[in-house]
Amino acid sequence: MTAQSIGKRLWAIPEGYIPKYSHGPEPEMLSHETACILNTNDEDAHISITLYFTDRDPAGPYEVDVPARRTLHLRFNDLKDPEPVPRGTDYASTIVSNVPVIVQHTRLDSRQPENALLSTIAYGQS
Amino acid sequence: MTAQSIGKRLWAIPEGYIPKYSHGPEPEMLSHETACILNTNDEDAHISITLYFTDRDPAGPYEVDVPARRTLHLRFNDLKDPEPVPRGTDYASTIVSNVPVIVQHTRLDSRQPENALLSTIAYGQS
Amino acid sequence: MTAQSIGKRLWAIPEGYIPKYSHGPEPEMLSHETACILNTNDEDAHISITLYFTDRDPAGPYEVDVPARRTLHLRFNDLKDPEPVPRGTDYASTIVSNVPVIVQHTRLDSRQPENALLSTIAYGQS
Amino acid sequence: MTAQSIGKRLWAIPEGYIPKYSHGPEPEMLSHETACILNTNDEDAHISITLYFTDRDPAGPYEVDVPARRTLHLRFNDLKDPEPVPRGTDYASTIVSNVPVIVQHTRLDSRQPENALLSTIAYGQS
Repeated sequence: MTAQSIGKRLWAIPEGYIPKYSHGPEPEMLSHETACILNTNDEDAHISITLYFTDRDPAGPYEVDVPARRTLHLRFNDLKDPEPVPRGTDYASTIVSNVPVIVQHTRLDSRQPENALLSTIAYGQS
Repeated sequence: MTAQSIGKRLWAIPEGYIPKYSHGPEPEMLSHETACILNTNDEDAHISITLYFTDRDPAGPYEVDVPARRTLHLRFNDLKDPEPVPRGTDYASTIVSNVPVIVQHTRLDSRQPENALLSTIAYGQS
Repeated sequence: MTAQSIGKRLWAIPEGYIPKYSHGPEPEMLSHETACILNTNDEDAHISITLYFTDRDPAGPYEVDVPARRTLHLRFNDLKDPEPVPRGTDYASTIVSNVPVIVQHTRLDSRQPENALLSTIAYGQS
Repeated sequence: MTAQSIGKRLWAIPEGYIPKYSHGPEPEMLSHETACILNTNDEDAHISITLYFTDRDPAGPYEVDVPARRTLHLRFNDLKDPEPVPRGTDYASTIVSNVPVIVQHTRLDSRQPENALLSTIAYGQS
């Protein structure tokens, strides 16, 4: 039994929102929006992220690599190139990989003293 | 690698409930129920929403457009025509599009001082 | 465009747990575990639920109907026949329908003053 | 109508993180990360879990059994052999079974007085 090549190459996360402020010690309690990407393959995954908005053209592509047999819990907060992700703004994202990966979307919202969490496996398509 | 035409044309969200009251500054902290819709196509998506209830006939259709290469984070609270969504009432919804889209369901519950969040990719079918 | 017959006839929810106690006004803030079922068909759905446990044989079947073009937000707390759902006990469930339906799993945990929420579309199979 | 053999044999959970500390009475309110596994088959499921990390080789396999017609709500906190799951560290997991099962991922985060919850059906593949 092996888990090699599990996943899909095209993923979408319609929900995206990075709050403008946080509450609690950083970086652990900083409000953040995460795409957790798992690459079970024996080769590196080259990943291209595009951000969609309500009233402007898409941003990107943002390029990231997930090495072979590794996971990357990518914070959208950390995306800088070609442009940072605007705070307090609705967005959505697509994640395209050259090899099958699995993507899970998680948000920690710490605008208030007690955190709130959400998570879902993203929408995947072959 | 392109993300064009990712998604499905038929979606369902069995869970729906808009609390009767909120806590915190509006509109950001208003209790709300959202269908985040992503349209990666080069053409606009024409979307038809139907609401289902426990003990009455369905309401709708509610018609909304999501422009090409845009996302819409639609608050059910804002649906007005043909009728507003009743508060404090169980409902469910179907979302039908003329082109493939992706739908994610999110709720912010601010009935209490500390918010709670839930989210899931909706159920999609070709 | 119609949403008729969307869904699947076999669903599973591996996570199940009804806390032993609650905090806040009942019934709204009573800790509860819900299977939200949507029936978009023009005929009633006859549904059979089985509960699985860690260290005893399954319980059920529990029989419920969801009328044509209605949703039922079924609280596991309310299941009584053939036996109530034990509190403070891990369980899982399968939901079998004679017509296609969609199932979403939600929990409100009010053991503490501020509620926590979780939700996911259940696992569906044709 | 029967629910026998519902599920898939290969599952992935890209998100994984066990907080370093908790708040509240143990074991109920101990921060934990859970894979809820449901086996509806008439035979036992032999399950092999592999953990993936950001900057080191995978750990495992961890071997667990889920008896016929039982559910196991497995806490990653409890995995000990071949090595415990590091706290405060990003990880991901794959879950491989010899018979079809269903897997749901849940986290209770009790780092703060009021708990936060997340849950999603894991990513399954035949």
